[in-house]
Amino acid sequence: MNAIINDIEIIKAKTTKINEVDFDNLKFGQVFSDHMLECNYKNGAWEVPKVVPYHAITLDPSAKIFHYGQSVFEGMKAYKDANNEVWLFRPLENFKRLNISSKRLAIPELPEAYFMDGLKALLEVDKDWIPNKEGSSLYIRPFVFATGKGFHASPADEYKFIISTAPSGAYFAGKVKVLIEQTYSRSANGGVGYAKAGGNYAGQFYPTQLAVEKGYQQVIWTDDTNHEYIEEAGAMNIFIRINDTLITGPTSDRILDGITRKSIIDLAKSENIPVEVRKISVKEVVEAAKNGSLKEMFGAGTAAVISPIDGFGYQGTDYDLPKLDKTYAEYLKKRITDIQTNKSEDPFGWRYKV
Amino acid sequence: MNAIINDIEIIKAKTTKINEVDFDNLKFGQVFSDHMLECNYKNGAWEVPKVVPYHAITLDPSAKIFHYGQSVFEGMKAYKDANNEVWLFRPLENFKRLNISSKRLAIPELPEAYFMDGLKALLEVDKDWIPNKEGSSLYIRPFVFATGKGFHASPADEYKFIISTAPSGAYFAGKVKVLIEQTYSRSANGGVGYAKAGGNYAGQFYPTQLAVEKGYQQVIWTDDTNHEYIEEAGAMNIFIRINDTLITGPTSDRILDGITRKSIIDLAKSENIPVEVRKISVKEVVEAAKNGSLKEMFGAGTAAVISPIDGFGYQGTDYDLPKLDKTYAEYLKKRITDIQTNKSEDPFGWRYKV
Ligand SMILES: Cc1ncc(COP(=O)(O)O)c(C=O)c1O
Ligand SMILES: Cc1ncc(COP(=O)(O)O)c(C=O)c1O
Repeated sequence: MNAIINDIEIIKAKTTKINEVDFDNLKFGQVFSDHMLECNYKNGAWEVPKVVPYHAITLDPSAKIFHYGQSVFEGMKAYKDANNEVWLFRPLENFKRLNISSKRLAIPELPEAYFMDGLKALLEVDKDWIPNKEGSSLYIRPFVFATGKGFHASPADEYKFIISTAPSGAYFAGKVKVLIEQTYSRSANGGVGYAKAGGNYAGQFYPTQLAVEKGYQQVIWTDDTNHEYIEEAGAMNIFIRINDTLITGPTSDRILDGITRKSIIDLAKSENIPVEVRKISVKEVVEAAKNGSLKEMFGAGTAAVISPIDGFGYQGTDYDLPKLDKTYAEYLKKRITDIQTNKSEDPFGWRYKV
Repeated sequence: MNAIINDIEIIKAKTTKINEVDFDNLKFGQVFSDHMLECNYKNGAWEVPKVVPYHAITLDPSAKIFHYGQSVFEGMKAYKDANNEVWLFRPLENFKRLNISSKRLAIPELPEAYFMDGLKALLEVDKDWIPNKEGSSLYIRPFVFATGKGFHASPADEYKFIISTAPSGAYFAGKVKVLIEQTYSRSANGGVGYAKAGGNYAGQFYPTQLAVEKGYQQVIWTDDTNHEYIEEAGAMNIFIRINDTLITGPTSDRILDGITRKSIIDLAKSENIPVEVRKISVKEVVEAAKNGSLKEMFGAGTAAVISPIDGFGYQGTDYDLPKLDKTYAEYLKKRITDIQTNKSEDPFGWRYKV
């Protein structure tokens, strides 16, 4: 039975895969809901998106996505509260950032209504796919990529925008030990590091594999000039607590302006936690670890929300973080997820009802 | 009629598109030959490649190529000489570089035989597609991309290697004025700039568009630290002639180790042209332009072979290059294309008979 929601045409899947899914044991981003939003850019304009059954994409071998990495994406989550109401968290920030990323990659920007109304229509159709179990959520992946053809290194003339969703459990499991990178880099000054561009992630895989072989789970990226300053983790911004002060680096053209990061800064400020947004040198962190003033390190991002770090390696030495009874990480994670899942007041107006 | 060439299975196209192609007016990389080589990586190994009819690729929306830019490619050419014999130029260098790129992107490396025998089988099947007109050639595009599924930023477990070919004319046409970039960058120290990774190209599109709007055709990339040194062009290495000396920057982890570049260095040396491989500062080039010692600038790469530069822009000022009667660019281009197309001796053993 087809329908129209927010002017978006819906073509329903004939069957559902939902009964095959074990909602009590969800992994991250591995099963996909019945529908997706699909929208094509052709002849200089984005066509009106449609909700369609989740289906394979067919492309010419010369489609530019295969050759020139012209793609951007976003990561968001939908939550279901105790009354089965569906919530998003600051979705307009994701929409804006997608367009910021697209601009840097010479991809045509999307109209806001196509993104927002398309997303809402998709969530309405696949509402049953949104988990309501604590710690689970519907991970939402909007992405845009070049479908236009030709072996010429220049922007494509056709693109596809898709939103696909995946009911998901926690992103990381277990202890997280990180390696402060001293050889490889994630992004250049004047480069695309601030964009959620596909190529930024592939470039991290090999250095991360090397770190994993040495017993770490994640790389902490540093500036590419001297590897002197802490920048960010693979898909998370980094917070460091020295004594009672929470510190995070300023965003730049090398660092993604994370929505979790800026929400944590606002939350911490409102809770009278001293927050500093400033460059943090590796040296400062190592010294704080040595003299005991380093209390916490954690990553912040949509997928993992807040991911506490147990220790870090730097130039062949491993430093353990103390085990505190009460951590900022735990406190702030609860505060932010309570807002996200409609368990508490939302003084910031971040929650968005679908 | 199917067959086996060099142990590679051939599945022939039922019809040919060759009669639709105007071989006298070929553009670059826009029409594709009847067949392609296809090879899948699954369960931890590359399967034996096959020559198959050129056909569309079908992928799950969660295939990692759409999200994480995990792709690498190569660019080669096949030439037909007066006796209809087919030649490649240093193909093993492309094979080796493809694997160097793959390693950096955490893509499994290919066995040499799959690449070389696969390529030869493909060229035999599509021999009629190789142009023999002066200046035309069969452009060859080997590429590897992640087909494995899932919204987790980690290397894929499945990949596809394809070689597709396109009869092609000249890459650039007309005058080339370049802009020496002072804001954006192509690659980071410790990054993926030395790899032919898809993402390196998408990142160049927007700055190149800005340069085009200002009246330039190409960007000359500089180091991302201070924009002080000349690095390379979009898909070419850069040579600069000051008085009678030919200078090109050293390769590094930010710069692609171009096969044309190193061939030109060897050729120039053998012709007793003074060659220096050393850092070239923008300041040095600007001063040479001002005092008249700057004689030539040209790009070097497989697609364009040698592409003379007519002038450059730097900090709001345009500098024209002199019009010489005899240029290194023209001389070296003739030398290298004569070797490539079997019109002259090949003292270096670069030519490779298919
Ligand atoms: C490189 C990078 N940094 C930081 C983040 C965190 O951003 P956000 O909090 O908006 O998810 C992400 C993930 O989205 C990321 O990919
Ligand atoms: C970034 C870049 N630099 C230089 C080159 C030239 O390399 P080659 O001479 O091997 O084609 C290319 C093209 O292949 C390239 O993409």
